[in-house]
This record gives sequence, C-alpha cells and structure tokens, in this order.
Amino acid sequence: MLIVMKPGAAAQEADAVINAIQKIGLRPHPMPGATRTAIGITGNQGPIDGRRFENLPGVAEVIRVTKPYKLITLDLRPEKTVVRVGNATIGGNELAIIAGPCAIENRDQAFAVAKAVHQSGARFFRGGVWKPRTSPYAFQGLGEKGWQIMTEIRKAFGLKIVTEALEEHHVDLIERHGDVIQIGARNMQNFSLLRRAGRSRQPVLLKRGMAATLEEWLLAAEYIMAEGNYNVILCERGVRTFTQHTRNTLDLASVPAIRRISHLPVIVDPSHGTGSAYMVTPLARAGVAVGADGLMVEVHNHPEVALSDGAQALTPSEYAQLIREVRAIRDVTTPIVNQGPIETKVA
Amino acid sequence: MLIVMKPGAAAQEADAVINAIQKIGLRPHPMPGATRTAIGITGNQGPIDGRRFENLPGVAEVIRVTKPYKLITLDLRPEKTVVRVGNATIGGNELAIIAGPCAIENRDQAFAVAKAVHQSGARFFRGGVWKPRTSPYAFQGLGEKGWQIMTEIRKAFGLKIVTEALEEHHVDLIERHGDVIQIGARNMQNFSLLRRAGRSRQPVLLKRGMAATLEEWLLAAEYIMAEGNYNVILCERGVRTFTQHTRNTLDLASVPAIRRISHLPVIVDPSHGTGSAYMVTPLARAGVAVGADGLMVEVHNHPEVALSDGAQALTPSEYAQLIREVRAIRDVTTPIVNQGPIETKVA
Amino acid sequence: MLIVMKPGAAAQEADAVINAIQKIGLRPHPMPGATRTAIGITGNQGPIDGRRFENLPGVAEVIRVTKPYKLITLDLRPEKTVVRVGNATIGGNELAIIAGPCAIENRDQAFAVAKAVHQSGARFFRGGVWKPRTSPYAFQGLGEKGWQIMTEIRKAFGLKIVTEALEEHHVDLIERHGDVIQIGARNMQNFSLLRRAGRSRQPVLLKRGMAATLEEWLLAAEYIMAEGNYNVILCERGVRTFTQHTRNTLDLASVPAIRRISHLPVIVDPSHGTGSAYMVTPLARAGVAVGADGLMVEVHNHPEVALSDGAQALTPSEYAQLIREVRAIRDVTTPIVNQGPIETKVA
Amino acid sequence: MLIVMKPGAAAQEADAVINAIQKIGLRPHPMPGATRTAIGITGNQGPIDGRRFENLPGVAEVIRVTKPYKLITLDLRPEKTVVRVGNATIGGNELAIIAGPCAIENRDQAFAVAKAVHQSGARFFRGGVWKPRTSPYAFQGLGEKGWQIMTEIRKAFGLKIVTEALEEHHVDLIERHGDVIQIGARNMQNFSLLRRAGRSRQPVLLKRGMAATLEEWLLAAEYIMAEGNYNVILCERGVRTFTQHTRNTLDLASVPAIRRISHLPVIVDPSHGTGSAYMVTPLARAGVAVGADGLMVEVHNHPEVALSDGAQALTPSEYAQLIREVRAIRDVTTPIVNQGPIETKVA
Repeated sequence: MLIVMKPGAAAQEADAVINAIQKIGLRPHPMPGATRTAIGITGNQGPIDGRRFENLPGVAEVIRVTKPYKLITLDLRPEKTVVRVGNATIGGNELAIIAGPCAIENRDQAFAVAKAVHQSGARFFRGGVWKPRTSPYAFQGLGEKGWQIMTEIRKAFGLKIVTEALEEHHVDLIERHGDVIQIGARNMQNFSLLRRAGRSRQPVLLKRGMAATLEEWLLAAEYIMAEGNYNVILCERGVRTFTQHTRNTLDLASVPAIRRISHLPVIVDPSHGTGSAYMVTPLARAGVAVGADGLMVEVHNHPEVALSDGAQALTPSEYAQLIREVRAIRDVTTPIVNQGPIETKVA
Repeated sequence: MLIVMKPGAAAQEADAVINAIQKIGLRPHPMPGATRTAIGITGNQGPIDGRRFENLPGVAEVIRVTKPYKLITLDLRPEKTVVRVGNATIGGNELAIIAGPCAIENRDQAFAVAKAVHQSGARFFRGGVWKPRTSPYAFQGLGEKGWQIMTEIRKAFGLKIVTEALEEHHVDLIERHGDVIQIGARNMQNFSLLRRAGRSRQPVLLKRGMAATLEEWLLAAEYIMAEGNYNVILCERGVRTFTQHTRNTLDLASVPAIRRISHLPVIVDPSHGTGSAYMVTPLARAGVAVGADGLMVEVHNHPEVALSDGAQALTPSEYAQLIREVRAIRDVTTPIVNQGPIETKVA
Repeated sequence: MLIVMKPGAAAQEADAVINAIQKIGLRPHPMPGATRTAIGITGNQGPIDGRRFENLPGVAEVIRVTKPYKLITLDLRPEKTVVRVGNATIGGNELAIIAGPCAIENRDQAFAVAKAVHQSGARFFRGGVWKPRTSPYAFQGLGEKGWQIMTEIRKAFGLKIVTEALEEHHVDLIERHGDVIQIGARNMQNFSLLRRAGRSRQPVLLKRGMAATLEEWLLAAEYIMAEGNYNVILCERGVRTFTQHTRNTLDLASVPAIRRISHLPVIVDPSHGTGSAYMVTPLARAGVAVGADGLMVEVHNHPEVALSDGAQALTPSEYAQLIREVRAIRDVTTPIVNQGPIETKVA
Repeated sequence: MLIVMKPGAAAQEADAVINAIQKIGLRPHPMPGATRTAIGITGNQGPIDGRRFENLPGVAEVIRVTKPYKLITLDLRPEKTVVRVGNATIGGNELAIIAGPCAIENRDQAFAVAKAVHQSGARFFRGGVWKPRTSPYAFQGLGEKGWQIMTEIRKAFGLKIVTEALEEHHVDLIERHGDVIQIGARNMQNFSLLRRAGRSRQPVLLKRGMAATLEEWLLAAEYIMAEGNYNVILCERGVRTFTQHTRNTLDLASVPAIRRISHLPVIVDPSHGTGSAYMVTPLARAGVAVGADGLMVEVHNHPEVALSDGAQALTPSEYAQLIREVRAIRDVTTPIVNQGPIETKVA
C-alpha cells in the first residue's frame, strides 16, 4: 500500500500517518519527493484495508498495491487447471460445450433437447431444476421432480449434468444426482453457498456476478478454493451496463485478463450474455475466438412456449449450426492459443 | 404487451404472431398503422415474458407494458406504510436513525458506539454479527458471540437491534435476539433468504443490490411480502457505476421514484453509498432533503483501527454533528413532504 | 407511442390526455383494458417527445414505439452498404484492416509502422495528426506538419489515409490530403462536425461514443447521412462501464445488433476497446468472429516510448501475427456470415 | 508512478524496467519487498503515461500516483473561487439560481418564463438558442433570431443570460449578447471549444460529460483555465448508468469530492439529472443540502407543448415552490457549510 500525502502536508501529519501504520503492526517507508511525500507500507500478511488512512489529516490518497487473492493465481500454480468430469474435461484441449434448456419443464422437452445436445458431440447437459426468478410470480422450476428427468437423461445419453444450486441443501442433491454445481450470477457473493460448494468434491461452475469486477469474481473463486475444492470453472455471462440492445454486455476481455492472472479455466455464456437468440451464435463464435475453454448455451425445442428465457434459447437446428461454426473456429485458433501464454507469444 | 412488426412485414408474419399469442391463451389486438402494424396483448394474469416473440419472423420489437409487481404498489394500498418496532417507527413523522459500527468487534467498541447512538436520540442500533466480505481472508464477524454484546446493548440503552442475516438460520437468531432483519445488497436476489424473511414477523430492511434496477429491487420486496410479511423498509445504498471518487453512486432519485409507485418506506445509507467518511454527512443531509424516511449510518469509536469499513465510519463527534444537521433539514422539509404526494403538490 | 394510464385513473384524466394529444396535431387511440386504459398515438411524422405526457394527472407511463432514424435502416435500403475507397472496400468481401500509430510522431516512426502495415496486406493507414487528449498538458499531435509525412506515406505505400478530424476545418485538410474522415468517440455528438462530414464526399468512420446507446450512435450516423453523405462506417470501440481490467468494455454484441437494423458496415477497434496490448489480439480475433467488416488496430515501432497510448500499441511483429490469426478466422467465418442475414440463417 | 513487478520476476526484468524509465529521462527508485519488487518513479514534470510499462516482461501492474491537473487544485489556490457576473455571484454566500426554458421557442414563451424567474429572485436566465439534439430531425433552436428575444429579456428583467455554445463562433455571439458561456455535457471533451472558451473573458459553465470521471471533468476545466480564463463553474447534471427510472443518475457525491480537491464553484442541474418534472424539486432540495453553490432548473410556461425536454420542465408555479423550499434548506445549511472545509469540521 502507498499513502500519498497532500503537497502542503505538515511534517506532523506525515508522522501521525506513520504512527497509525505502526499501531496496527505494519512497517512504514516514508519517501519524501520534490512536491510531496509518499509512505509505503510493508509487513502485511495478505491485503489490509488501507482506506481507513484516507481520513487522517494531510492524506491525499491511499493506493492499494497487494492483490487480495492467492490460490487462484498463476504465482501459486503456473500451469492451467484442467477440470475432469468423468472422461470429459474443461480447460484442456477439448472445447467444452454445456448446453440445454434454461429450465427442465417436462420429460418430453428435456429429452428432445438432450438428444440434440448429445448429437452435437457436447458432453455436458445444463438444465435448471430450481430457477432464480426476478418475480415471485414466475415459474420457479420443477424442483426435485426435475431430478427424475435428469437422472434418466444422464443414463440415456451419458451426458454430465450441470445444475444451479440456489441453497446449501441443493448442493447435497447435485452431489447425489448431478456432476457439476453451478453457482449463478445472483449468488456470486452468497458466501455461505460458496463455502458449501467449496466443501464438495464436485467441480463448481462459478458465474460472474452482474456487477462484479474481475477481482470480486476471482475472490469468489478463492472462497471456494479456500475450503479445499480446486475444481472451479469461471463463466463469463455479461455484466450490467447502460446499453439497451442486450440484456447484459458480454465482457469478452475478461478471458485474456483471467488468463494473465489465473490458472482456472474460463467459459463463455452467450445466451445470458446477450439475451436474444439472434445474437447467441455470433457471440459464441467470438467467445471461442477470444480463447475461452468452452461455451454454455441455452437450447429449447420450442422457444416460443418456453416457461423461462425463451427469447434467448436456440432451436435444436440453430444450435447444431452454432456447434459447426465454433468448432471450425476452434480448429483454427487452437494452435494459436496453445502456443503458450498470449503475452509472450511474440518475440 | 405490444409487439411491433417491421415496416415490410408480410401479412402472414403478423398472422403467425397472432397465432403464437393465442397458443398461450392470450388475446391479440392487431392495430394496423400507416407504415407498420402493432399487436397488443391482453388477457394475461400478471406479466408474461413476451421477449419470446422477438425471434418470430417479421417482428421488430416487443414492448412490455404491464408491471410485474402488485403488493408493493400504491394501487393496492394508497397510504404509506408505517413500520412499527416497539415504540419506534419508520415511515411516519419521525426521522428514523439507524446507527452503529459496521461490525461488532468487542464489548468496549460496541458500548462506546451505542452510547453515542443513544445520546443522539436515535432509536435503532446497527451492527454486523456476521459480515459478508469480498475476500475469504477478511474479518467475518464475531458470530453468535456478538449476540451476547447485542443483548446487553439492547437492555442497557433500549435501542432496537438491526442486524444483517446472511443465511436462513441467521433469521432465527435475529428473531430471538434482535428487532429488524437486514438483507444486504449482495443478497437482494437470494430468493430463499427473502422468502425466509417473508415468513418472519419482524420487519425487514431490504438494501438495494449493487446493480439492481428499481423494478428488481421492488420485486425483491414483493418476494418478502408475497410470504405475508408486509413490514418491509427499502434502503438505498448506492449502485455500481463507472465513477471512481466513491465506492458506489448514491442514487437519491430512487426516493421520489419509489414514492410514486410504492407505499413502502425508504431510507438512505450514505456510508456505503459513498465509502468515505468525509462525504457521509453531506450525503446524509441530501438524503433527508430528498425526502427519505430515515438514515443508516456507520459509526466507530476508532475508525482508524476498525476491522472493516473504517474508511467510511464517522467518529462519535462527527456523528453527533451529522444528527444536528439532518434534524435541522428535516424540520424544514417535513411540512413540505407531508403536504401529500410530491407530484400533486403544486396546483 | 403508447400512454399507459394508472389503474385508478379517472375518465376525465384520460380525456385530458386525449385532448393534449389532439392539441399537438396527432391522433389518439384509446384502448380500455380490464384494469387500465392505454392510449395509442398515430399521425406523427417522425418520432415525438412523448415524455411530456408523463406529468399529466393519471398517467403511469409513456412508452415510445417509433424509432427516430430512417436513412440508416434496412427498411430504407435492404442491401448492405459497401464503402469504396479507390480500389479498397469496407463492407464487402474483403476484411478491411486499418492500422497505424495512435499519433504521427516523426517521419521515422511513421514510415517504420507504415511499412509493417503495408507488408501485412492492409489497405488503410491510420495516424493521428491532431490528438484529442484528456489533459491539456499531453502531446496534442504534430498538426499540419504531420500531413507532409502522411502525404509521403500515401505515395510510397499506396495506403489509404484515415485521420481523425477534431474541428470542422480539419475536414478540409483531410479532403485535400487524406482518404477517410474519422470522427472520434468524444465527438460522436459534436453535431456541427457531423454535419460538416456529411457535406463531404469522403467516407466517414464514425466511432461509438463512450456512453452511447446503439440508438444514439445510429442517430449520429443519421446526422451525417441527412446531409447527403451515405458512406458511413461504424466503429465499435468499447463503452465505459464499472469494470477495471480494461480501459473500455468492448461491446461486440453491437455488431449483430447493427446488422439487424442497418445496412452500414461496422468495424471493431480492439486497441481502444481494451487499452492493453496483451488483449488486442484475442479481441481482434473475437471481432472478426462476431462478423465485423474490419478492424482498426494501433501499431508502434517502439510502444515503450510512444507519445500517446503506448500501453495499447502492438509492435510490428505482434501486429503481423494478429493479421495471420484474424485472416484464418475470416476464412472460416466468411461463408457463414455471407449466407445472409444471421437471424434467417436457420430453417 | 509505481511499477509493481510479478512475484517471480527475474532481476533482469526489473533492470529492463529501470532502463526504460531512465531512457525517457526519469528517475527509478527500486523498492525490493518480501515477495516482490516495486519501482517508484520521480523526476517527471506533470503526469506521464506509465501504462506503456505494462507490457514489459515481469511487470504485474502500473499504478499512477501523480494527478494530472494543477490549476483547478486547492494546492494552487486554497480559497474558493467566487465567480462574479455583474452584481451577481456564483460560489459566494448567495445561492445561485439559473432558470429558464430548455430552448427559446418564441417571444411569448421566453417572456412568460423570464417573468417567473425574475419574480423568484433568481439572477440568471438560461435558454437554448442552439440546441444539441440526438436526432437530426428534432427542433434545433431558433438560432440567431433567438438572440433578439434574449436581448430584450436581459434589458427588461436585468437577468444575466446563460446560453450553450455548440461551436467556436457561438462563443463570439454569447460574448456580444450574453453573460455566461455554457459548455454542454456532449461537448465536455470538445477541446477546441474548451480552448475558445478559455480565451474569453466571460465565465464558463462547464457541464459534466455523460460518462466523465471526476478527473476528466476537472481536466476539461483545466483546459479552459490553461488558456487564462479562471472563471469556471462546474455543473453536475448526472451520469449515464444502468438505471431506468431516470434519464441520468445525479451523482451528488461529486460536490463534496470537488470541494476536497478544487477551489471552483459547483452547481447542480436536477432537470437533466433526473429527466422527469416530478423528481426535479426533491433533487433540487438534495443538491442544496449537499452543499452546491447553486442550481440550474428548466422552467416552461406550457411543458406539455414544449419543443424540447417538456418532460422535465417545471411550470412557473412548481418552480416558485421549488425556490421557496431550497431557500429554506440553504438558510439551515449555510452556517454549516461555511464553517470551513467539510473534512476538518469535526474536532
């Protein structure tokens, strides 16, 4: 941390800051400059909330230097994490495809979609059993009945099941019947739920919160890892901005930004990231081109009668076309991306 | 809902939309115009997700008309709700002041702050027992030990206790030892927690989510009310924007916007809303002047050694001065605000 | 436009709205519903500012239906515009590459970069002669001296010159010495400058404003076209959001959104769109994959001593690699994208 | 500036950074830490664009320390600037009120509004002669004909005339016929226009850009002051955010933030800051309570037929009531605010 004093700050004011630093057990490093003094701080184990110094007389600004995360970093683990789910992987050479309906509505719908997902060569089936809905009057998911359908699908198609947990006890059920625990955007900072997922042996798919900075998102992953579960997959799904032509603004730059900091795999959700079916395929292509490890896509056999998120669901044939397109791009970009860290690629 | 067709849309395309509307049991109202046709929809009980029609051929846009909330509206209950907590009120003539430290750290700190809060004439003491922290390595609150301190403060000063619940079982403890259940910004769409609070008999203080639209916030209140608990207090605490001089951007326009739609009381939190102690008092003044029913303010006897949020905590003497200032403004604005709904004030 | 009355609105209140509509020469269409009345408005030439009705008693909400633009729309011109600059095109089959330094600093720098741009097969050279800088103390460009260097480059390499105009009289100079007039993000709503560019015969590259909605951006293009210049190229360069890992958030969904509405070509600027060199190549790949007609990229022979925007400039060898990567993706996506409008691609 | 190396950075990488710093004439200060090295930079005159160092091998992050502005700071001028316009002031004891219609539409309208403004005791009349409109088809102002009306109003009521300049030659006309040059939000970074205003002897009212950080806004003021015109008044008018209940989000925290850094007066525009008449009065109250030096308010004698911005204009009687309310609040807050800098108010 660096505390910058105002140009006209008195020597006593700088001394008071120095004392305050020492008082909490840290070491101050005064650096007098031509126009003003800066005071570095060392000796901290992990980050400290230095903004408390901001109100001391003579202080102009407090600048944080140390990053608050550890386990997610390339410093800790320089090789990329490959999450294994049975014989499928996320973060390795394979482009991971997670597809399915927003919510499991009934057996016919779920099977029709699962068939299309399976035929495309995807390995993961997504489907909401419990749905977080903005309105209390909207369809909230089939609940545990949905698990019967999921269990049949898992058996019939060999697809890995990815489902969102809204509460801690949902994790128990996913552990019993599913394969990957999804934490949704609205729960990215539901710390009890993160800790519960961190005590699971199943991989966790962690969606970015609607207004989460990269740091907050990575710290949410750190929460899970701090409990012992290192199989975390990050999922960019767009953030809330002023724009109105999409439901969210898909922030694809988060993919190279994460690569530079973290060993965790990252996938892209162009369905929530745009909110409109006609945009899903172009943004899926972009997500693969930017270097994501996979995609999460909503598919519905009859989007126009879907009980939730119909506007952003692809039909099975649109989805099949999407898969052809993104595989073609992946074939072209794999040799590029796999050459090593992007920033050192060029001599 | 209104479905707007493209200028050159074929008659068959409009017919297909009309059929799709009828298929889900609603009534279409085609309105041909000079350059294009719009199709109104009626017959719906509650809002429908019309964005599904967006992908039908020939459709230019889908415009939602019906609002998805009911219980929070002035249509349902034209008089303002006054929440009563023992002999204190929020939403009535009294300016409600909720003050205290971010987190209960120890008995001395809690008592020193509670004394200042009591002396100011405030009726509510806030203090975190469990703290939602962005980093897993930050101080997470005293937990249930904190309740012993809280119980003593409640008895010693007669202050009403306001504490944030992070999990459903926290609500049990607040019901036993506290007075008002706070739902924090990060949990505004933790629907299980909202429903649990909705089944309580204690009032619920619902903070606005960091990226919540007014509608999403009011729907979160609707979740609580739909379970039977009508004593909801809304708390504006700033939203996330691109600005960097504050931690959040306090959106004071939400106060008149809520007044125009809802009967629920609304208070302002200038501490989280700014993140810097030097801004808390001016924004508290602004919050009262805009017409809020109360304030929530962080106070610490030694902000420079606070275990959390020290940068935004006021000292007891700064807090005492704030209270003097806001009461003076309240005295001036009360007759104005109480003349009736703001929009009909002027002949 | 649609005016939605409150549920309990009196018949006289609806009548007053109807009168206000007629007073400004338009036709009201009252549509009484089960719980409330909506009033449609027709008869308007172009959009009207209906928000004025918002304050009339009994009005709940005013919803705009008509879009305010005409010339940019596919309704007016269903085929995509191909902008021709000599033998180069933007919007046609060719992937348009516009590359060069942020600012022309001196002859050596400009020639070194131009050589790399030419070698890559790009047809357009960008370079700031006048620079809009946030600080008055930062390097402001070489001004007219820069034109001598530009003229030599144009002659030596046959590259088309793209330069930003900051003032109306800059357009005169670009018309004399350059090929494409660039309007920067900060001037997207400098309407005098837009009109001056609209009276030029040179193509105009219109960057999206930092906080511009799609509609505002398209209306800025409409300003240029309304003066008679139909050769407008849109350039997505990111928007301002709360995120901190990039300078701007590149909103790639604007590309399919524009395609659905407008015939104008659209390119992507991953340099300003990210602000960091290590992200430029992945986001350039994504820009081509999403379906953009071209890219605008900053290149500098010595980024570490650049007088402006060094952090986001690629070296010539990084740039050469970028071109190889995006051409490979273009080869894969061209047949896809050229099959026709994206939304009708799938049966 | 502070350059933070990665934890595992090699000594040669740090040396390369040190060399790069020296190459541009600055002094490096290596500070080795337990886990990583930071390198301070001194010797710079004004700020340097240090982000160029971000791409050097081994660099984790570049942190800027020096602020890029000078003339606007309290360091340069510790007393608050009071702008004098004839016998009226902005920034002194008087609460400055600038009121009038969005645009001058005709003589009757302008006189009716001016009469109300004059009766309220306000000293400044605002009115657009040229209007920046998002659509090229919207009313663009009366142009120079409007000046005849303005000249009559100035003479008849003794009001000071505040008008927005959209182009450099508009400044000539304002200098001849008006009193204060307004620079609008869309032109906050139109640097030619800022410089032209900086060469004027008239005060400049500088509105905050729609997506401007505090720093960018202050640097725009610095542009004007760098040309010699120190009479700059800042005007907070809201910023663009994701919220939908207002046209902009009024960021009242900018007022104390500016006070802490700058000697320039700052006023608040609740009309553009909200976009809806029913919110203007509460937010005007809040603007005065937060400590602004004045208000800018839109008034129209017939808002429902206004040619622009009718939705946010107050009627003369609503405006008169607003003035009574804000004066009452000003009376209460003046002794508070005038006690001195807010941050040193409390012992």
